[in-house]
Amino acid sequence: MRGFRFGAAQAGLKRVGLDLGLVVADAPAPAVAMFTRNLVRAAPVEVGIDRVRRGTVQAVLVNSGNANACTGEPGLEATLRSTTLVAEALGIDARLVFPASTGVIGRPLPVDRIAQALPALVNSLSEEGAGAFASAIMTTDRFEKIATARVDTGEGDAHVLGIAKGAGMIHPDLAGADAALPHATMLAFLFTDLVAEPEELRAALESAVDTSFNACTVDGDTSTNDTALLLASGASRCRAAPAALAAALGEVCRELAIKMVEDGEGAEHAIEIRVSGLASREEARTVARTVASSLLVKTAFYGKDANWGRLLAAAGRAGVRFDPRAAQIAIGGVAIVRGGVALGEEAEVEASKVLAEPRFAVDLVLGGGPGAFSYFTSDLGHGYVDVNAGYRT
Amino acid sequence: MRGFRFGAAQAGLKRVGLDLGLVVADAPAPAVAMFTRNLVRAAPVEVGIDRVRRGTVQAVLVNSGNANACTGEPGLEATLRSTTLVAEALGIDARLVFPASTGVIGRPLPVDRIAQALPALVNSLSEEGAGAFASAIMTTDRFEKIATARVDTGEGDAHVLGIAKGAGMIHPDLAGADAALPHATMLAFLFTDLVAEPEELRAALESAVDTSFNACTVDGDTSTNDTALLLASGASRCRAAPAALAAALGEVCRELAIKMVEDGEGAEHAIEIRVSGLASREEARTVARTVASSLLVKTAFYGKDANWGRLLAAAGRAGVRFDPRAAQIAIGGVAIVRGGVALGEEAEVEASKVLAEPRFAVDLVLGGGPGAFSYFTSDLGHGYVDVNAGYRT
Repeated sequence: MRGFRFGAAQAGLKRVGLDLGLVVADAPAPAVAMFTRNLVRAAPVEVGIDRVRRGTVQAVLVNSGNANACTGEPGLEATLRSTTLVAEALGIDARLVFPASTGVIGRPLPVDRIAQALPALVNSLSEEGAGAFASAIMTTDRFEKIATARVDTGEGDAHVLGIAKGAGMIHPDLAGADAALPHATMLAFLFTDLVAEPEELRAALESAVDTSFNACTVDGDTSTNDTALLLASGASRCRAAPAALAAALGEVCRELAIKMVEDGEGAEHAIEIRVSGLASREEARTVARTVASSLLVKTAFYGKDANWGRLLAAAGRAGVRFDPRAAQIAIGGVAIVRGGVALGEEAEVEASKVLAEPRFAVDLVLGGGPGAFSYFTSDLGHGYVDVNAGYRT
Repeated sequence: MRGFRFGAAQAGLKRVGLDLGLVVADAPAPAVAMFTRNLVRAAPVEVGIDRVRRGTVQAVLVNSGNANACTGEPGLEATLRSTTLVAEALGIDARLVFPASTGVIGRPLPVDRIAQALPALVNSLSEEGAGAFASAIMTTDRFEKIATARVDTGEGDAHVLGIAKGAGMIHPDLAGADAALPHATMLAFLFTDLVAEPEELRAALESAVDTSFNACTVDGDTSTNDTALLLASGASRCRAAPAALAAALGEVCRELAIKMVEDGEGAEHAIEIRVSGLASREEARTVARTVASSLLVKTAFYGKDANWGRLLAAAGRAGVRFDPRAAQIAIGGVAIVRGGVALGEEAEVEASKVLAEPRFAVDLVLGGGPGAFSYFTSDLGHGYVDVNAGYRT
């Protein structure tokens, strides 16, 4: 992405592999961010909220292996110190450095190890470093998450690049820094070479997050560290219409959200729960989120079981009114319920074939209303238990 | 329990074992019930709501192996037919027969098998049959759930007997039959030999359910069939003060709720999440429910990991305001967090010993307010996945 360089290094925060990432813009870049609405906010979230309020960011420092959450005043000092060290190494103002952390909660962040790795980190910076950066920010992730889209500017060539991490503690609930209560750990870093003001960036980010990160779940647990940051380098010298930027950014964020649920801890499937026919989009969102979060639904997906009874029961407990006797359910386009009752074993056998695929969609049509919403979820099985019953030890 | 006889039989609704239970009162008994608030209600719930409105019930017919939910008009007819058959066999009015079902959703209820088993079922009725009845209503339960308490009447001897089932799809949300939106499958049948009017019974049941069944979770999924029914035979010829009945009923319901989470699918621990120090009881309930339902908290309990970071992060996403920097956390009385930060590894090692026990309590003190609430939950591990990824097959 023109205007940005990416780097990665190993600081020994994780047992193995890269665990420190750095992005540097050629100049201070217009920046907006959204943060977790969890009341318990990690130190880097507190600092990040403060920094992004100034409207520009030039460097992004990210560590994995340690969330620096629930670490009190020493945790805050550790984050501030690490950003100061980066600023000194780059010769920029510390207030232009945006921090983010992910990993275990409640352990002191070893700033000394970060300091030691800094020369190698700065040395590694290059325009081709996005892959290494994506790798350095991973925790329980099995693969790097990168997505790109072209922006329709009507003039020259411009793009959006997104790099994210997240496989567990994934149920983001992001809001602007000024929201009353700012909430998996997911981290998403979004870059564009467009020329854009913070206000344009904010509107596009809020719209994109609403149907991507804020519409995906692995385990229902909203993290203390969730952060989505968008920077615009202006290096393309092009501007785009708000709708064009929102479209490209939305495409990138949805692809990253799908990659997160696909990489959900122990998951074998990425499923889109599409709810429609309700009175409003908000009602459809509530039902889609409830179905996507249901443990019985997620274990049935793990078992490749076309268990429509669990789908309908989860929808029914969402607190939204609909007529269950009019419900229609389809899995991968295969109708299995009409009028609230099963279409028979043949349909279920057909649907079971879809359930073996890595990505599929489930449609719940719950009436004739205009309200529709899609939520991304994963199946949940033994792998999730293995990862989370022994994560710290 | 004086005034009631209990029976059980095998109708072939489950692969093995007793699957049909019957309770008969000597005479029509004052009755009250609470039902699931899931919008998707099983046929027996629809019929039960209608029957209990009349204020008296003489017989309770319960089958396991089939929930008779999402079965449309034929499902409703199947329930009505089964209660008529029981009424005929007992020589009572069908409107005095209260039905309940639990098991797989969406399969037709085979009334013929129930009809064939009826003579043996009626023949098995005895005052000593509560154990067999408790066994017949089990689905994925590993053990029978029975609890008793003495009622302080100031006069003669009176008791409350409770028989329940439930191990999965446990997150009851029971309301009176007239609630706007009536929701694990849990079934609880409560009996007393007190003399009591329906209004006295209703107040006592609502109070008892509030801090027991409606304060426990295995998997967060509220069933289509949840039912709690209370009958009073009057056979003791004693009356009790409302507080005395509520106390005894509360004791029985809490013991049954604890047995349910203890028997949570694959669970090895029953945990009481005690939240205090908030502004109101409702706020404390919200936080306790969120912590008790957190998958990361439940898998940490499975891993015997004193992962207080997950406890605090779950509390933080509940949408209730508190100061995380003032939070105190103890596991089994062992303090592990004070002022929002860890008390060190020694405390965690000590707490880990508690985590090996079958029953323990976790205290989250989140401020100086008067609001407190306790929620019962289980750990969640491989056993849960095994049961639910292959339940129907």
